[in-house]
Amino acid sequence: MANSISIFDTTLRDGTQGEGISLSADDKLKIALKLDALGVHYIEGGNPGSNSKDIEFFQRVKALNLKAKVTAFGSTRRKNSIADQDSSLIRIVESGVPAATLVGKSWDFHVRTALQTTLEENLAMIFDSFAYLKRNNVEAIFDAEHFFDGYKHNPEYALMALRKAQDAGADWVVLCDTNGGTLPSEIHEIVSRVRAELTAPLGIHTHNDCELAVANSLAAIQAGARQVQGTINGYGERCGNANLCSIIPNLQVKMDYRCISDEQLQSLTTTARYVSEIANANMPVGQPFVGNAAFAHKGGIHVSAIMKDSKTYEHISPELVGNKQRILVSELAGQSNIISKAQELGLDVTANNDKTKEIMERIKELEHQGYQFEGADASLELLLRDAFGEMTEIFKLESMKLIVEKSNGGMNAEAIVKVKVDGQTVYTAAEGNGPVNALDNALRKSLEQFYPSINNIHLVDYKVRVIDEKDATAAKVRVLMESTDFNNTWNTVGVSSNVIEASWEALVDSIRYALLNMAKIKKTQDEPREQLGLVNH
Amino acid sequence: MANSISIFDTTLRDGTQGEGISLSADDKLKIALKLDALGVHYIEGGNPGSNSKDIEFFQRVKALNLKAKVTAFGSTRRKNSIADQDSSLIRIVESGVPAATLVGKSWDFHVRTALQTTLEENLAMIFDSFAYLKRNNVEAIFDAEHFFDGYKHNPEYALMALRKAQDAGADWVVLCDTNGGTLPSEIHEIVSRVRAELTAPLGIHTHNDCELAVANSLAAIQAGARQVQGTINGYGERCGNANLCSIIPNLQVKMDYRCISDEQLQSLTTTARYVSEIANANMPVGQPFVGNAAFAHKGGIHVSAIMKDSKTYEHISPELVGNKQRILVSELAGQSNIISKAQELGLDVTANNDKTKEIMERIKELEHQGYQFEGADASLELLLRDAFGEMTEIFKLESMKLIVEKSNGGMNAEAIVKVKVDGQTVYTAAEGNGPVNALDNALRKSLEQFYPSINNIHLVDYKVRVIDEKDATAAKVRVLMESTDFNNTWNTVGVSSNVIEASWEALVDSIRYALLNMAKIKKTQDEPREQLGLVNH
Repeated sequence: MANSISIFDTTLRDGTQGEGISLSADDKLKIALKLDALGVHYIEGGNPGSNSKDIEFFQRVKALNLKAKVTAFGSTRRKNSIADQDSSLIRIVESGVPAATLVGKSWDFHVRTALQTTLEENLAMIFDSFAYLKRNNVEAIFDAEHFFDGYKHNPEYALMALRKAQDAGADWVVLCDTNGGTLPSEIHEIVSRVRAELTAPLGIHTHNDCELAVANSLAAIQAGARQVQGTINGYGERCGNANLCSIIPNLQVKMDYRCISDEQLQSLTTTARYVSEIANANMPVGQPFVGNAAFAHKGGIHVSAIMKDSKTYEHISPELVGNKQRILVSELAGQSNIISKAQELGLDVTANNDKTKEIMERIKELEHQGYQFEGADASLELLLRDAFGEMTEIFKLESMKLIVEKSNGGMNAEAIVKVKVDGQTVYTAAEGNGPVNALDNALRKSLEQFYPSINNIHLVDYKVRVIDEKDATAAKVRVLMESTDFNNTWNTVGVSSNVIEASWEALVDSIRYALLNMAKIKKTQDEPREQLGLVNH
Repeated sequence: MANSISIFDTTLRDGTQGEGISLSADDKLKIALKLDALGVHYIEGGNPGSNSKDIEFFQRVKALNLKAKVTAFGSTRRKNSIADQDSSLIRIVESGVPAATLVGKSWDFHVRTALQTTLEENLAMIFDSFAYLKRNNVEAIFDAEHFFDGYKHNPEYALMALRKAQDAGADWVVLCDTNGGTLPSEIHEIVSRVRAELTAPLGIHTHNDCELAVANSLAAIQAGARQVQGTINGYGERCGNANLCSIIPNLQVKMDYRCISDEQLQSLTTTARYVSEIANANMPVGQPFVGNAAFAHKGGIHVSAIMKDSKTYEHISPELVGNKQRILVSELAGQSNIISKAQELGLDVTANNDKTKEIMERIKELEHQGYQFEGADASLELLLRDAFGEMTEIFKLESMKLIVEKSNGGMNAEAIVKVKVDGQTVYTAAEGNGPVNALDNALRKSLEQFYPSINNIHLVDYKVRVIDEKDATAAKVRVLMESTDFNNTWNTVGVSSNVIEASWEALVDSIRYALLNMAKIKKTQDEPREQLGLVNH
């Protein structure tokens, strides 16, 4: 179809070039699942020729049977060598991916300065590399690095580079604004000219150095490109890559192109937030379309107009992208999610009863304090069960003391806890490698005589995030913990201005959840992890 | 001059509609001084008819004798009333401003739905209000609210609204994309048509709901607008207003328009950072042009090309906007990153000498332990300076003890530190909201008598990440801290299995780095405060 646009996601490759973005192989697999559910057509996973983390990703991703084409990234063959003997190209083919992107030079200045070879050799490198991929039945995408700068300096050579890839059978020719310095009017003009010169389908890859990456992507599509490369939340080197979370709704809602299904578009907001959680990167509150303030209304006049008709101050309906309108602070955050979660637990929750309103108020208050239940299902479940009086108190903390001492280079941490279990008071102390470990050890020690299975549980991830940055080291922090018992995984949350207290909250929730759900855990486990076979890792 | 563009800053008015942005009258005066130094032509200060904070601002700003025109904001007169008797218009004139902006309706739907009056009465409201301003010798700017939406629905009426302002003598007619939903191609087409219909100079005012505010502003300028309205760092309601920190360099460096002088352009980065400090809003690390990562380079291939010629991966020279190149160090990068970082610091490092090899070994070993210098360039600088014997020991920790206690719901944290400074032993204790805050307080307390300026430094971000997940709560954690004074931001790292020890490391590095750069800090501090006579506030 003429108005179909192919979405190429490079969050897992170019996105990880962003400052502070670092993803493990597990993280990458979790994100790949979400991207596949969103409906992107290509998921670029990394460079199988470069590092062990990416090699692991390409091996394990096969078991997920994604609809999207998992794509490997590499460069055209080395100068003065043979493609069939290029170890990095060989590894791409051996990784078994259905598609691969090769980056190559199209700016004569770069060929001479960065690559330090002749213009002819660079053209041969492009031709040979694509011919090699096509001989091996890999869908082949040419990322023409610095294409726009190259075209502006030497249009003949830049076009020659594209034609070499096309002649060798490349399935896509993608024009890259690598330095992010090109303006939308230039993009439109240059893509139009390239469209007239080439037969291969064109793609666009932009960077946000001028705050124009989204506009540049749209301009290229309007000039005839049919693939757009970008990342979730615009992660990427320097100022980031083009942000798919803005490009997709612009194309689909405003410009009548088709990228993903309307249902998939409604998962855009949760996808953006999920990826930001995994990447441990704060999402700007005002991020277009998917940010928490994207449809928030503050001014009195605006709000009264909004109440008369929401299109007075809203450019689209927020539900189209799975976001929601917010007026003042009152957000019935994910009310339907919470209701369905409670119903799943067999609790009597419906939209209109008083109990539900009470719970909603409580959750709203906690979210206002900085709790976030999207990434902490187990804490949410405990909260709901508590509200329905379904919880018996398994243990009760009477007091806790933690001492951390450093002198002569050594550092010690010890925790003393006093808990009441089954009517008995247990008073224990334990050491640890750090304060949270000392607390964890002391708490387990006091419980293990009553619940021996507690020793099967352990923590697999621990994240701390400052919520309210203006108070410096006195700011509130949110701790997210992920725990596992070899078969299942669950997440808990704690919030406090004291990192120890927040950790303690999340730790206690984790253990309460484990003990209460010994029988139930199997049912509520995290599906993606099961699919991923992450259990024994 | 045909290529002169008038910069209209509304940080102090529309910018304060952004979530979390709140400015006192003092804050507004400080920012106004910085904006004036940057060279913007209009500074919209607020609405003198609406609140006491703005009235105070308009009174006190006169004493600053700014070159920029301080501008008041208001609406066209109330429906079915007389402009000369409109209290809010009267207060604008009485405030003594040289220029005023009045917002009025140009979308028929809004006239009927939000304003609830007739189309004719709205046109009379526009005419009367501008005639009143001009009778009182105030430069008059018409902000045509929702102009683009209005034009798309009823072009005749939208143009009629503009003509009424023009006929009444308005000096500028500004086309507003109030809901931020318009695309650059539409902006270009509509502004071109308006340009052909009107004689008054045109302006553009956009919002970022589609991540297109900058592109839309540029498109309007290309179609003939000669004033651009926006805010520093793009602050504003929902997804923000158009970001002047991106618009100005795009217009001036890339498109040959003149907005401010080249010297003023070099103050763009410090202006952006200063405003974000005053507004207490974190600047995204990857903010175009002025962000800390806007000219940061990570990948090894990129860095080695950058060393050959910086325009290989930089779209402009960072110095043009007062920013600087940064080389990030990471596992992905090679030796070349570290060498150029060291050279940037003026250290004698070349690829082949023994010192360099020794440093590389040390960094590799630290990275293996879990340190990550890519997000911690201050720690890397300290490491390099230490290796070159360039650091004198500012203080030395003799011992540290931390006690966190919880009982009956309350939680306390206290830290006791013993440090040696200038040959003297200082033994201090302090409390805090949490353990890191208690340590921070105790350390500052022991140093402030020697280095009083230490109190100007504060921490803006604090992140903790488990590095090696298999050891559960005993796993190693990496702490990344971001600290700031008014002008600079720096990042430090600490690694340990003990979160307290890792935090301590990052904290100590942050303070060492700050003290090392003290001379720079002193120079750039307090200037605006002194001018304002704010010192005693």
